[in-house]
Amino acid sequence: MEANARRRILTGDRPTGRLHLGHWVGSLSARVRLQSEYDCFFIIADLHALTTRPEKDAIGEIPGHIREMVLDYLAAGIDPERSTIFVQSAVPETSELALILGMLVTLPRLERIPSIKDMAEAAHLEALPFGLVGYPVLQAADILLPRADLVPVGKDNVPHVEVARELARRFNYLYGDVFPEPDVLMADVPTLPGIYGQQKMSKSLDNAIFLSDPADVVRQRVMQMYTDPNRVRADIPGTVEGNPVFIYHDLFNPDVDEVEDLKARYRAGRVGDVEVKRKLAAALNAFLEPMRERRARFAAMPHLVDEILHEGNRRVRDVARVTMARVRDAMGLNYFREA
Amino acid sequence: MEANARRRILTGDRPTGRLHLGHWVGSLSARVRLQSEYDCFFIIADLHALTTRPEKDAIGEIPGHIREMVLDYLAAGIDPERSTIFVQSAVPETSELALILGMLVTLPRLERIPSIKDMAEAAHLEALPFGLVGYPVLQAADILLPRADLVPVGKDNVPHVEVARELARRFNYLYGDVFPEPDVLMADVPTLPGIYGQQKMSKSLDNAIFLSDPADVVRQRVMQMYTDPNRVRADIPGTVEGNPVFIYHDLFNPDVDEVEDLKARYRAGRVGDVEVKRKLAAALNAFLEPMRERRARFAAMPHLVDEILHEGNRRVRDVARVTMARVRDAMGLNYFREA
Repeated sequence: MEANARRRILTGDRPTGRLHLGHWVGSLSARVRLQSEYDCFFIIADLHALTTRPEKDAIGEIPGHIREMVLDYLAAGIDPERSTIFVQSAVPETSELALILGMLVTLPRLERIPSIKDMAEAAHLEALPFGLVGYPVLQAADILLPRADLVPVGKDNVPHVEVARELARRFNYLYGDVFPEPDVLMADVPTLPGIYGQQKMSKSLDNAIFLSDPADVVRQRVMQMYTDPNRVRADIPGTVEGNPVFIYHDLFNPDVDEVEDLKARYRAGRVGDVEVKRKLAAALNAFLEPMRERRARFAAMPHLVDEILHEGNRRVRDVARVTMARVRDAMGLNYFREA
Repeated sequence: MEANARRRILTGDRPTGRLHLGHWVGSLSARVRLQSEYDCFFIIADLHALTTRPEKDAIGEIPGHIREMVLDYLAAGIDPERSTIFVQSAVPETSELALILGMLVTLPRLERIPSIKDMAEAAHLEALPFGLVGYPVLQAADILLPRADLVPVGKDNVPHVEVARELARRFNYLYGDVFPEPDVLMADVPTLPGIYGQQKMSKSLDNAIFLSDPADVVRQRVMQMYTDPNRVRADIPGTVEGNPVFIYHDLFNPDVDEVEDLKARYRAGRVGDVEVKRKLAAALNAFLEPMRERRARFAAMPHLVDEILHEGNRRVRDVARVTMARVRDAMGLNYFREA
């Protein structure tokens, strides 16, 4: 591992289940590209899910969600030979590092992070769980444990990576150089709107097209899409900018001529929504079909996901044990400890 | 372990170094008694020390402090065959459990505990470290990891054990019965004043007589003791109540007749401080001499402390692994995890 000259990336997802086009645009497509250049660690952050929903029924959904996500990763082109896919709760070293890092950051510093209170509100929590306040500390442990150099994140998560950077600096200052200061690799992509246009694509808002949706479901969902609300008839000129169907065309329809033709006729009031949507559904299904095929092939292999995760967990723990040995050596916290 | 019908106790100390008479009165004497009736786990809570002093020089002092404390435990009569002495940081399962428990308690609940802010002030910290706010959560993990039934603590620590009780209830309610709800075993002993009378005996206040102090140091310290400040001459009647020399006589001088005689003459103005103190020094040295002898014998055995701690760490980890397996099974947090 250490001889590997490639820089390391840590990024991942909460185990929310099947991934959708918003994930592809926001992170998954970049990950598929990044793995050729970087040593990638993809974490499925199940402990983070406990910060807002520790109830047993919520935990009960996690294994199935993880399985679906791994199949989506594989279908999308994540290569488990080159990249490490692992489950956060399978790495006990994460807890050890998080506990230590928690000593090196103040409560007011963490309370300044707006996303924490947003998460509590979104989960309808009356009071902040202590573990939720520690969310960025746990995330810092995720990042620093494999000594990641780069963290690809969305805008919302930048303040969390900033905490990880501060903790790396603070640790290195107090105890000596152990951690690279992880850089943010911010995805320069707009958020994909859901099919109803107003809000971003999200499973919980029921406005998503999933990577694993069958062709007919994709067609149905596209037919439900919002377009220009002022265009009540096909012969009324419409607006292309910010119109979800054209955002999707631009992102997923490789036939640029077709898209430009549709846009021109839409602006002129010379094309119906149905034609625009049919062509979008066709483009989306052409894009998704190879993923669906790969997914079906992987899903039919009974132990594949387990084997990939066991191998990923093993790999990250090999790195994590080296990191924790360095952490304890640097701190001088290695007395009277079993090997 | 599980077949053992004896109830379990968890208690311990931060690694502050040599123990003094205040420790003996407040906790150590009770521990020596309790180990005949209970399965005792004595934790040396070095991670707690990091909550206020994570600096490397402070950590550097910990191994020496631990060594001195273990020698004092042994000298005082803690029997490592019957009781388990272990080091907190050598038990990674503590971090795992603390992380989970932190999801089950709110920040406002922890902020209501007065001792946390007191500790921050005592350590001259400008802002509360996140890890210090989590002190009671970490302590709950210490208590719940060996599934302790009883926690002997001083008055200051009762609110911390209350958090552990709440967390045991909360965990059992959410996931099923794993933890006994630990009861407080409150020591019904007054706090021992230091030799200068005003404040409690404390290493940091330099008012302590250590269990390992040589006989001449004990004599010197006793001669420095504050007595009745109004009694400027031996023929002035003095006050016995609350007078440190008589508090010590009552606790450490088994010759009740001698103590009563001294008290009567002190009240009547017919004894000098020097006689009272000489007799106290003699009593203290008679009490401490067997400890000093045992300590010298143990200190001369080169690997003894290491062996005791390795064995203690091993024993508590055997219990901790069982607990964590039950925790993960109860939560359903055991998928995709290596054995």
